[in-house]
Amino acid sequence: MLALAGGVGGSKLASGLADIAGDGLAVIVNTADDFDHLGLRICPDLDTVTYALAGIANPQTGWGIVDETWSCLDRLAALGGDDWFRLGDKDLATHILRTHYLRQGETLTAVTERFRQRLRIAPAIFPMTDQPVRTLVRTAQGELGFQHYFVKLRCEVPVLGFLFQGIEAATIPAPLEAQLSPVLHDLIVICPSNPFVSVDPILSVPHLRERLLAMRRPVVAVSPIIGGAAVKGPAAKMIRELAMPVSPVSIARHYRGLIHGIVIDEVDAAHATEVEKLGIHVRTAETLMTGKERQRKLAETCIRFGEAIACTLQ
Amino acid sequence: MLALAGGVGGSKLASGLADIAGDGLAVIVNTADDFDHLGLRICPDLDTVTYALAGIANPQTGWGIVDETWSCLDRLAALGGDDWFRLGDKDLATHILRTHYLRQGETLTAVTERFRQRLRIAPAIFPMTDQPVRTLVRTAQGELGFQHYFVKLRCEVPVLGFLFQGIEAATIPAPLEAQLSPVLHDLIVICPSNPFVSVDPILSVPHLRERLLAMRRPVVAVSPIIGGAAVKGPAAKMIRELAMPVSPVSIARHYRGLIHGIVIDEVDAAHATEVEKLGIHVRTAETLMTGKERQRKLAETCIRFGEAIACTLQ
Repeated sequence: MLALAGGVGGSKLASGLADIAGDGLAVIVNTADDFDHLGLRICPDLDTVTYALAGIANPQTGWGIVDETWSCLDRLAALGGDDWFRLGDKDLATHILRTHYLRQGETLTAVTERFRQRLRIAPAIFPMTDQPVRTLVRTAQGELGFQHYFVKLRCEVPVLGFLFQGIEAATIPAPLEAQLSPVLHDLIVICPSNPFVSVDPILSVPHLRERLLAMRRPVVAVSPIIGGAAVKGPAAKMIRELAMPVSPVSIARHYRGLIHGIVIDEVDAAHATEVEKLGIHVRTAETLMTGKERQRKLAETCIRFGEAIACTLQ
Repeated sequence: MLALAGGVGGSKLASGLADIAGDGLAVIVNTADDFDHLGLRICPDLDTVTYALAGIANPQTGWGIVDETWSCLDRLAALGGDDWFRLGDKDLATHILRTHYLRQGETLTAVTERFRQRLRIAPAIFPMTDQPVRTLVRTAQGELGFQHYFVKLRCEVPVLGFLFQGIEAATIPAPLEAQLSPVLHDLIVICPSNPFVSVDPILSVPHLRERLLAMRRPVVAVSPIIGGAAVKGPAAKMIRELAMPVSPVSIARHYRGLIHGIVIDEVDAAHATEVEKLGIHVRTAETLMTGKERQRKLAETCIRFGEAIACTLQ
């Protein structure tokens, strides 16, 4: 099965799917949040997914590595370096090594695969593209880089929209291209990641959305909105600022034309009818993934939902 | 006063001199051991001197930062990265930030000055040049990079000689050039660093040796050889392999034509006459710098020795 994932929420469902599917899972990860910091290439979503699948993610934050230390960051500050981005000592090894390999001419796809093998991760992990794509947040103050908006401004500026700089030149890496086949994958899961800044960049890589549709396999999304709020991150705030209702209905509408079904939380059961009117199947479940068991349970729901939808696609 | 310094021994005497001279001291540091590791520019001698003068050097090893942690190195190994060079988490901040500034077009001189200011170090610290110079060790196996010889091979291969690759294109940085003046400095101290791979590269920067001589100020060396051995590092082994006697006489002979005097250890007092026959003044002292007090005492000896020599130069 294929999963499209951004950061924390995406990595949790990917972990649940990995528990069931093992190396039958391939995760396509957003790279539009990637940025260079002190000369190091940082890939927040790739790292979050990789650490989660390796079982070394920090269970408190959902991102970063468990039992992290911060000696380097303290010294960076002492030396007058930028310390607004929380670079952990362990996390740094990933950034240093990735930057080194990229400078030597390796693709991000190849570096990601190296790390996957070293960390003995069963599922395949693919950056959505090897070309640099950068999310810009349109605001009344102009276009802001995503990390600037997200980390420095703590998402406090209202958003007007999003641009994915470089997306027209982005191509699907050959190893990912080979995966976009109905022979290899019978289900496509859109993880509960931010639809605007995590999933949309993936779907905006030229031909990627069309290739997913051409697989003619069930596409199931999981709503990142639960009871009028996002579990984590600015998704709810963005939906509000874009003048849409903060409910799974907006998520379903956003993915209309791509998804066959959406999993919404039990607390949002009242919205099911409205979603179904869009021609999208609905399943309600506990979608808050606190702990490994709930990750796996939600993954099972997605798989069974996909199987049910598959029958209707014949 | 000016001091020429390499790594640990040099940084200790520089600390002693700094205790007395404060911002009246300028240290010229060897950069021929510098190398790139995982895309980071490592400057072992500059860092050792900087950490020592900032009072943050590891007192056990003499290099690296006190209370260092190793989280990043452990992860680098887990990810399959080279871990033969001991990169500490705190130390990493220096390498990351330096590499970042150098890539942005700053000179090594400017970066060193940045760090000096941030760490509130009184003496000036100057890399010998801003151009890349690399020590190659000539051996029966061919020419080896210094770090390869020093760290990977633990100096086990016999040396035949040394080359300083790039030295012909090296220039004295303008801020250092401005310091090579008898108006600013009344004494030049050659610290007890390795004469072949720490001090010789400095003296080989085109015009630097001549500029030091043209200052017509006392030049005093401190022997890194005590009782037939080096306190640290491969100096004694190199002297032996180059078929010279392992005594302060070889050090004096090596610096002949540049130095007016040499400080040798009390245990080597018997060699004084032989050194004086070379036309070089001798002073004996406790030269083993165990602790701040002994660093300062040896620095005082150098200064008084210089003053005595100054009278003979009039």
